[in-house]
Amino acid sequence: AVHGARKMEDYGRFLALLVSALLVGFVSVIFSLVWVFRYREGLSWDGGLGEFNWHPVLIVTGFVFIQGIAIIVYRLPWTWKCSKLLMKFIHAGLNTIAMILAIVSMVAVFEYHNARNIPNMYSLHSWIGLTAVIFYSLQLFLGFAIFLLPFAPVPLRAALMPIHVYSGLTIFATVIATALMGITEKLIFSLKNPSYSASPPEATFVNCLGLLLVIFGALILWMASRAHWKRPPEQNAKVLRPLGGAPEGTEAESTMTDGSNADKSDLRISSEAARKQNLKLDEAGQRSTM
Amino acid sequence: AVHGARKMEDYGRFLALLVSALLVGFVSVIFSLVWVFRYREGLSWDGGLGEFNWHPVLIVTGFVFIQGIAIIVYRLPWTWKCSKLLMKFIHAGLNTIAMILAIVSMVAVFEYHNARNIPNMYSLHSWIGLTAVIFYSLQLFLGFAIFLLPFAPVPLRAALMPIHVYSGLTIFATVIATALMGITEKLIFSLKNPSYSASPPEATFVNCLGLLLVIFGALILWMASRAHWKRPPEQNAKVLRPLGGAPEGTEAESTMTDGSNADKSDLRISSEAARKQNLKLDEAGQRSTM
Repeated sequence: AVHGARKMEDYGRFLALLVSALLVGFVSVIFSLVWVFRYREGLSWDGGLGEFNWHPVLIVTGFVFIQGIAIIVYRLPWTWKCSKLLMKFIHAGLNTIAMILAIVSMVAVFEYHNARNIPNMYSLHSWIGLTAVIFYSLQLFLGFAIFLLPFAPVPLRAALMPIHVYSGLTIFATVIATALMGITEKLIFSLKNPSYSASPPEATFVNCLGLLLVIFGALILWMASRAHWKRPPEQNAKVLRPLGGAPEGTEAESTMTDGSNADKSDLRISSEAARKQNLKLDEAGQRSTM
Repeated sequence: AVHGARKMEDYGRFLALLVSALLVGFVSVIFSLVWVFRYREGLSWDGGLGEFNWHPVLIVTGFVFIQGIAIIVYRLPWTWKCSKLLMKFIHAGLNTIAMILAIVSMVAVFEYHNARNIPNMYSLHSWIGLTAVIFYSLQLFLGFAIFLLPFAPVPLRAALMPIHVYSGLTIFATVIATALMGITEKLIFSLKNPSYSASPPEATFVNCLGLLLVIFGALILWMASRAHWKRPPEQNAKVLRPLGGAPEGTEAESTMTDGSNADKSDLRISSEAARKQNLKLDEAGQRSTM
């Protein structure tokens, strides 16, 4: 009973953090819209400032908020009864949406720059931002090829999962850092009379958006790095084995935590028998996630 | 023999990463000096630009490079024969140096601003930077009170270690993000004719400094989050128990990884007997790290 109460308390703590993260993320999106519509030129697609404005809105919505949700989607306890495969599709799907929005948001800036003869890719913001988008796309492609398609053998998946987790979280943090640089640039360039240093309402408002992005990132990173909030592997194996498929979840349960856990806890918890069966299926080329 | 070869290979990988991190961190410090002496007004303490220039130099040296080293200091294999207490002093000492340099670097900016009647604390850079310094000082103070002073009971240490680790790494990442905002601001403000957007040599050079800081951060975070590179707890207990002291290292081994490991692996690995002895010593008020 004490154990049960502790579990409930822990579940409550997770829910509180999840609601906070969703709230902070949602408010960030609203802030980006208020910035653009109340203080700036709104949204359009005509090479003008209205086209540029898609950049902050789509980055905050897609590359920060949706990416953040994609990172913690395996942690939602009510999804643990769903198949791991379904959750992988949701994880990959959300990340694909985020990638598309990030690319569209970059196109908006390039078109705006070109229409006004402003050089592209001169700032640290643009260097790190483009690098982040490239790494993010690579991460998505490799994640799809290795963890979703049925070809990669389990030992390879287990070996690469820590790298997938680390690079995912590092890219996420880098994206938020890049957004903060973007806010800094935009406020300096667009606020004249009164300037940024005179702290007009827009400056204070958008600084608050920057703070919200940092808080959102910190919440997501905390939720993603607590090992005890991971999708439990046993349950999964139980669900899938009777269906005759390979036991999913031996390699990918560790998605959201320190990779070394993959070797240390998960692979130890998941029964040796299941692993052997898994390897056998692999050798026979029968392993399928489809 | 195969196991030994693997261990050596792993050790080699750690060394390669360590050398890379030291190199990238060292080159970052050099870059900040070259920026200030070759492209800017050098260093002085007279309310002019030479005083401002202490800001980037001390931040890169102290708040990025030294903080990064402080984070991974428990990971150095040749320190595992040293007492945990000594390593805690080194960890706290390096962080104290970093904090002092960060504070001096802020004083330089405030004095420069005041001498020129430039407002303080208007930018997102200043908001997040000051917040980071405050949290960093709090982290150092609490870390000292809980993990170095002999008063906190082991269960409290174990419960707080995951939070200490998480907030340490999050503050470190935030500091690097703040440095990138600072670089962005400074290049926009100081480059006129040719402007930042014309990509003069200084712009390209300092953008590269920004990239180096991101790479340094990524290397430190990788090294800090690999559980198998942690200081081994058993060895430590073995060394300390015969001396009659309390077995250090039951709570603090997890310093650099996902906190949940504290419950999951370390506390399980360290023998139950040692823990009981530890608690008994605590109750008797005899536990001392001094």
